Amino acid sequence: MLRKLLNFRNKLAKNMEYSNNEYTRTTRDVSLHDLSRRLAEFAEVRGWDQYHSPRNLLLALVGEVGELSEIFQWKGEVAKGLPNWSCDDKEHLEEELSDVLLYLVRLADVCGLDLGQAALTKIVKNAKKYPATTVITDHNPTSTSN
Amino acid sequence: MLRKLLNFRNKLAKNMEYSNNEYTRTTRDVSLHDLSRRLAEFAEVRGWDQYHSPRNLLLALVGEVGELSEIFQWKGEVAKGLPNWSCDDKEHLEEELSDVLLYLVRLADVCGLDLGQAALTKIVKNAKKYPATTVITDHNPTSTSN
Amino acid sequence: MLRKLLNFRNKLAKNMEYSNNEYTRTTRDVSLHDLSRRLAEFAEVRGWDQYHSPRNLLLALVGEVGELSEIFQWKGEVAKGLPNWSCDDKEHLEEELSDVLLYLVRLADVCGLDLGQAALTKIVKNAKKYPATTVITDHNPTSTSN
Amino acid sequence: MLRKLLNFRNKLAKNMEYSNNEYTRTTRDVSLHDLSRRLAEFAEVRGWDQYHSPRNLLLALVGEVGELSEIFQWKGEVAKGLPNWSCDDKEHLEEELSDVLLYLVRLADVCGLDLGQAALTKIVKNAKKYPATTVITDHNPTSTSN
Repeated sequence: MLRKLLNFRNKLAKNMEYSNNEYTRTTRDVSLHDLSRRLAEFAEVRGWDQYHSPRNLLLALVGEVGELSEIFQWKGEVAKGLPNWSCDDKEHLEEELSDVLLYLVRLADVCGLDLGQAALTKIVKNAKKYPATTVITDHNPTSTSN
Repeated sequence: MLRKLLNFRNKLAKNMEYSNNEYTRTTRDVSLHDLSRRLAEFAEVRGWDQYHSPRNLLLALVGEVGELSEIFQWKGEVAKGLPNWSCDDKEHLEEELSDVLLYLVRLADVCGLDLGQAALTKIVKNAKKYPATTVITDHNPTSTSN
Repeated sequence: MLRKLLNFRNKLAKNMEYSNNEYTRTTRDVSLHDLSRRLAEFAEVRGWDQYHSPRNLLLALVGEVGELSEIFQWKGEVAKGLPNWSCDDKEHLEEELSDVLLYLVRLADVCGLDLGQAALTKIVKNAKKYPATTVITDHNPTSTSN
Repeated sequence: MLRKLLNFRNKLAKNMEYSNNEYTRTTRDVSLHDLSRRLAEFAEVRGWDQYHSPRNLLLALVGEVGELSEIFQWKGEVAKGLPNWSCDDKEHLEEELSDVLLYLVRLADVCGLDLGQAALTKIVKNAKKYPATTVITDHNPTSTSN
């Protein structure tokens, strides 16, 4: 009984959170596990699991990277912070960045991999590969992630 | 003085965490703010900030998506959970997924956008666009993220 | 005078060809120089040359690769010859394949490179790298193009 | 008889051309049918046909687009004609552009589509969509290929 009440309270809280997110835009720190869980639930309740094979999701990801690229395609060099962009353009960019992220998180999940943990491990690996004292001598820095 | 000591302790803790991550593989839940902060610091101490313009990072992201695709390119359909993959292949995949994620997080950051928050907002938007009662009648489900 | 007449005749022929292509669908063999020339002219008469910098075109290419991927994203494995595809779906695919090709040809052109010649050279290089007697022993063939 | 002799002469010429291409770099105009034929033969004699399914080739194409992007990723804006690029860098770029082209041509072929014809049709369609008198009033030109 208590468990049921608690479940109900949690669901209520979650729903409120959902509806609040959209309007209040708090700067809550979002975790990869959280996104992964939400997307799994999202797919399950819609019966979309059957379409979420690794290669289907990968191609969907490539599609979203294409949409992300389209935003930047005719702009020439773009300054950090997007100084002259309209609110609409920034929101559009946020949506495309999100789409890439969501498919990436989902792809890792259906592959059975922990994306957040993998990312931390990669940062550590990169830190060893490119020690902080590295001096860059030309305009082709080594990659942060290769 | 106390502040200095605290800083030192924090750095020490961070370093231990760094070196632990690699070996222990705890399933710590990783947040997007955390990744963003680490990558910003990573770039700053290496003097790489100057190369991290939005379009440079976007092209680097596309490069990593290419490497991710190469893993899947000759495999035909791949089952969820990657049943017959070797540990090496899975680790390789984790690295490429991470590379995409890291550039995506960094791109959002230099654009001044909150990727985690944007992702939550997008999930809410998708939930309204595709109500859970939606019945899929053919094999082309609408996108989870479009 | 004769020159003018000849020019006029050529333009006329070109225009007829243009309008014919669309309807008759002859299987004329198209050359990369021809495409390159047409695209250069297309951009010039519209004043688009100024936007056709290498990185702008590259991002536009990535955008089109995304649209190409979207066609295949929820389909699972697709058989050669696209046996069950509708005419509309095939035409859509032809358009996206063309978009990728057109931006690729244009990118090579603004970089001052001869794409067709480069492609032949690459085929020769690949032929040496992978002699025809190569026996494939597992399901990861070496690439045709790497 | 004459026909046979001519065929023989043509084959001979073709073979010589093959071996010469690499060194002489003539500016022969290359056709899409020719590339398509060569790639089909290339795959067949190596027993690679079995791996050349549409989605395998598409992912291989995405992989090559990634390698193409890597060339441009840390360069900031790049001027037309690649004024300060070394010969090696240009040759590398030619190879990656070629790789994208070869997989694109092969993908169209296994789908049973005529890429060259499709490209001409698309140019005609674009010409109607964006009449030459179109005046561009801002910095976001409509696409040449959309």
